[in-house]
Amino acid sequence: MTYTPPVRDHAFLLGEVLKIDRYADLPGFAEAPMDVVHQILEEAGRFTAEVLAPLNSVGDKEGCVWKPDNTVTTPSGFKEAYQALVEGGWPALGAVTQYGGQGLPAVVNLSFSEMSSSANMAFSMYPGLTHGAYSAILNGGSQAQKDLYLPKLASGQWCGTMNLTEPHCGTDLGLLRTKAVPQGDGTYRISGQKIWISGGEHDLAENIVHLVLARIEGAPAGTRGISLFIVPKFIPDADGRPGERNSVYCAGLEEKMGIHGNATCVIQHEESLGWLVGEENRGLNLMFVMMNEARIGVGLQGVAQAEAAYQAAASFAKERLQGRSLTGPKNPDGPADPIIVHPDVRRMLMDSRAIVEGGRAFLFWTALQGDLAHASPDEAVRQKGDDYMALMTPVVKGFLTDRGFRVCSDALQVHGGSGFTEHFPASQYVRDCRITMIYEGANGVQALDLVGRKLAAAGGRAVMTFFAEIDAYIETREGDAQLKPWLQGLAAAKAELQDATMWLMQNGLANPDNAGAASSDYMHLFGLTALAYMWTQMVEAAQAKIDAGDADPFYAAKVATGRYFLERVLPDSAAHLAKLKTGAESLMALPAEAF
Amino acid sequence: MTYTPPVRDHAFLLGEVLKIDRYADLPGFAEAPMDVVHQILEEAGRFTAEVLAPLNSVGDKEGCVWKPDNTVTTPSGFKEAYQALVEGGWPALGAVTQYGGQGLPAVVNLSFSEMSSSANMAFSMYPGLTHGAYSAILNGGSQAQKDLYLPKLASGQWCGTMNLTEPHCGTDLGLLRTKAVPQGDGTYRISGQKIWISGGEHDLAENIVHLVLARIEGAPAGTRGISLFIVPKFIPDADGRPGERNSVYCAGLEEKMGIHGNATCVIQHEESLGWLVGEENRGLNLMFVMMNEARIGVGLQGVAQAEAAYQAAASFAKERLQGRSLTGPKNPDGPADPIIVHPDVRRMLMDSRAIVEGGRAFLFWTALQGDLAHASPDEAVRQKGDDYMALMTPVVKGFLTDRGFRVCSDALQVHGGSGFTEHFPASQYVRDCRITMIYEGANGVQALDLVGRKLAAAGGRAVMTFFAEIDAYIETREGDAQLKPWLQGLAAAKAELQDATMWLMQNGLANPDNAGAASSDYMHLFGLTALAYMWTQMVEAAQAKIDAGDADPFYAAKVATGRYFLERVLPDSAAHLAKLKTGAESLMALPAEAF
Repeated sequence: MTYTPPVRDHAFLLGEVLKIDRYADLPGFAEAPMDVVHQILEEAGRFTAEVLAPLNSVGDKEGCVWKPDNTVTTPSGFKEAYQALVEGGWPALGAVTQYGGQGLPAVVNLSFSEMSSSANMAFSMYPGLTHGAYSAILNGGSQAQKDLYLPKLASGQWCGTMNLTEPHCGTDLGLLRTKAVPQGDGTYRISGQKIWISGGEHDLAENIVHLVLARIEGAPAGTRGISLFIVPKFIPDADGRPGERNSVYCAGLEEKMGIHGNATCVIQHEESLGWLVGEENRGLNLMFVMMNEARIGVGLQGVAQAEAAYQAAASFAKERLQGRSLTGPKNPDGPADPIIVHPDVRRMLMDSRAIVEGGRAFLFWTALQGDLAHASPDEAVRQKGDDYMALMTPVVKGFLTDRGFRVCSDALQVHGGSGFTEHFPASQYVRDCRITMIYEGANGVQALDLVGRKLAAAGGRAVMTFFAEIDAYIETREGDAQLKPWLQGLAAAKAELQDATMWLMQNGLANPDNAGAASSDYMHLFGLTALAYMWTQMVEAAQAKIDAGDADPFYAAKVATGRYFLERVLPDSAAHLAKLKTGAESLMALPAEAF
Repeated sequence: MTYTPPVRDHAFLLGEVLKIDRYADLPGFAEAPMDVVHQILEEAGRFTAEVLAPLNSVGDKEGCVWKPDNTVTTPSGFKEAYQALVEGGWPALGAVTQYGGQGLPAVVNLSFSEMSSSANMAFSMYPGLTHGAYSAILNGGSQAQKDLYLPKLASGQWCGTMNLTEPHCGTDLGLLRTKAVPQGDGTYRISGQKIWISGGEHDLAENIVHLVLARIEGAPAGTRGISLFIVPKFIPDADGRPGERNSVYCAGLEEKMGIHGNATCVIQHEESLGWLVGEENRGLNLMFVMMNEARIGVGLQGVAQAEAAYQAAASFAKERLQGRSLTGPKNPDGPADPIIVHPDVRRMLMDSRAIVEGGRAFLFWTALQGDLAHASPDEAVRQKGDDYMALMTPVVKGFLTDRGFRVCSDALQVHGGSGFTEHFPASQYVRDCRITMIYEGANGVQALDLVGRKLAAAGGRAVMTFFAEIDAYIETREGDAQLKPWLQGLAAAKAELQDATMWLMQNGLANPDNAGAASSDYMHLFGLTALAYMWTQMVEAAQAKIDAGDADPFYAAKVATGRYFLERVLPDSAAHLAKLKTGAESLMALPAEAF
């Protein structure tokens, strides 16, 4: 499985569209001027393409193996690759310097994450979840907990997990039963079964730090009685070295459609020893720190799988000779033309580019908002960053994975019958990508989070700011003839989104089912509008280079793909608006027993 | 894996919408009055639910096994089920009485095929391909070939296959290399490798009859030098019993994403003994008889998998307790509400119903056209039937499998994390269904067949007839207030389709790439319009019953689902029209090396 890291596109986004050099006076950004970033991108590309990509198919075919002694073996080569990852310092890229990290902006770290996930999604989940555990302790842990765990998690020397789901509760964590009994010495004994724990057990690192949701004996029922605990697989000794084995075990692995290289574990806590993180009964808030970060990471996986699948499809389409172009032979000396001459094959490839490049821009733009929320000295910028992060997270997660999966399915389609066989990579991308629409909150939950919580927060401040930003952007460029089609497309999409938002405000209050019924179409309309904004900015940046005489075909391709987005992707927005305005009635008309 | 055969819906379509009793004076239909049909539906339901459905997951998990002696073992239970199928006379249902068949209309046989495919798609492909081989010989074979092979194929005692694809040619059969050398005695020796041969080798039947495309030595290059041959695995002796083993071997099985229970074979012809079917160099025409039948069968598989996946999703949604309804608890005594209370879950289930029920009606309506093309004494009816079959076949295949796959993916989504595990049936439906978009001509090929061949045939007669039929249907019902929303929706969709057709005529000639670029969106616009026509007729039939006082909730559900189709599915048509009218330019702008 070959993978060509999109270094050029990342550099374009960071350097020419988002122009991160303008934040050089902010912490983190100071350490990442574009020339340094470019070196990081090159090295990240090399590492992911050379070390991780070759193991992607191995991981799919071998899978992880559970043994009756409750150990789990990862696929051949994963252990060595993980060691190389840690030695290369990659997990530390986005961690704070105080605990051994390199302190780079999240938007730069995202580049590595995308490449890593494209090259080998199942593998990349191990360090991905470790970073989530790191964030939860960084945000909620005591100083002692930080000192003990953060350096090990930041470096990747130890791995981390999230222990949320139980057999009877996934989305609805209020039903959670795992029990924590205080031991009187500040520790707890935790009992219960957790399922679907990614990286819950494996042979990659010397310790695994589980972050576990459990209910302290006597705590209130529902979501207000849930606390967060650190449960290390090996209890650190006085020197912080892995000591006694804790009574937390992997009782088996799930058989799954994809991501076979990642161990999805049933985890038994048999009075395992745990330490409370933060306050009692406030565990869900801390878990949402991890969760929100993870949701951006899952949106990224959608784009990353789509990128990798697109690459495989494009390369197949250029090589496979079959039939002739409708406008006369393009490969007259060969037995047939490469299938890329066919407009319908192009349609699928251009769709993929429009979603992948637009989606990547949206991801990077959102991550930059998060960086500014932390690093800016300007309170207004920080607030806008926070608002945008909250508002965009469900869109990034839900829209980009829904669309990313479609790209993977199209990439398989370009392969024809070969795509359905496991000799080509297309099937794995479809199977691996499918989980992104589900985990960290199924996309329906994302859509509901968007319309039910994020839109209304602070009186709709975030979405109003977004509309005003787009209006100002368009107004400033009013005379730009070249950009006009994109400005018009953006204005139209934004008007539709605004219309939908008004409809929601009026009808969602009258009947909450109207909000639920509209949610998925609203999320997609939002995503399309966000991508229209991204594409307009990318076309603007590319066109500026072309106008200045830059003949790099990258810029011409960017403008052409931007046009495709406008003509062939954006028209879906009107259908989403029309559907959502029909309300809940036709969805809810049937009694449950009619299904 | 439980499966509830949709007997009620089939009876509604055949008896109340298509009203097949009105054709009681035609051959075939005479043997199938609705009371008999109802018995067949009940028995078909019982057989498929009790015998085939329990083996679906077994087939997926065990797969077929190839051994170095070139034999293939099917999954546990398949052999016994196949025997029961033959003993039950099911393969003979749609075969002509002259060769031992029951001579029932194709539209009745379709009911059994759908149920069989829902219950176990991989299994059902064995008799499905056998029927294809039967049709090719019935249409092109000599009397001796018919007498020898048809009774065995009609009964299912022997199985059949299609040997088309070679490693370097699938869609583009002109590149075909398999060679046939005449032996001077009317027989041929055939040499070459065929791949992706479904049911190419197995242990279900005493003989396998391969229908093989090959090029007779000295024949012209390209598609005009291809002939069709019968190559039996065991050469029938003078009494028509399987005799000497022919030199056609299975050299291995493909590892595939789905349909593991069906043996997808590499087939080696090592001077295998073959008999020419029909004329030399006219093999492709005969193969298209099989192919067209197979394409309808694949459209059916799309609907069948969608139906089965929907059933699994609906049952999960009624059982899984998680969260509370937005409008207050619906299961106040339980720990949570069943997830079917959530509008976004309803959206996926209603989408599925709208596509499955509408798609089934479209399939049945099309099959009826095929029956009338054969059986009607009225030449105009026969011609219309032929025209419609030709026009609708690519739509049935391409549109219904594209949409069927989306339904399967939605059904997986309703399952949440459970859907991604192989303990639930959702993943298998997604994986099995995915091939339907590819085989028997990838959906892009269907779309091109529609716009490049079928539309223009006989000066556009078929599509003009279809438009006129819809116009007349709408006009006749002008005063019907209850039906008005559907009549309006149908009129609008038909106007869009007509607009797109005009656009294609004008722009496809000027630049054939415009036709290619429009083809997929045109096919979807066509499919949506066809479903609007079907839904209007179904709502009309259901509403008539309701108006007559029939309180069967089936009719109310039909009208409610029809409303959902109108409000939430049909609006996609405008987006397809907008996209296709942008032409080929943005698709073809980039040079191939930019991908």
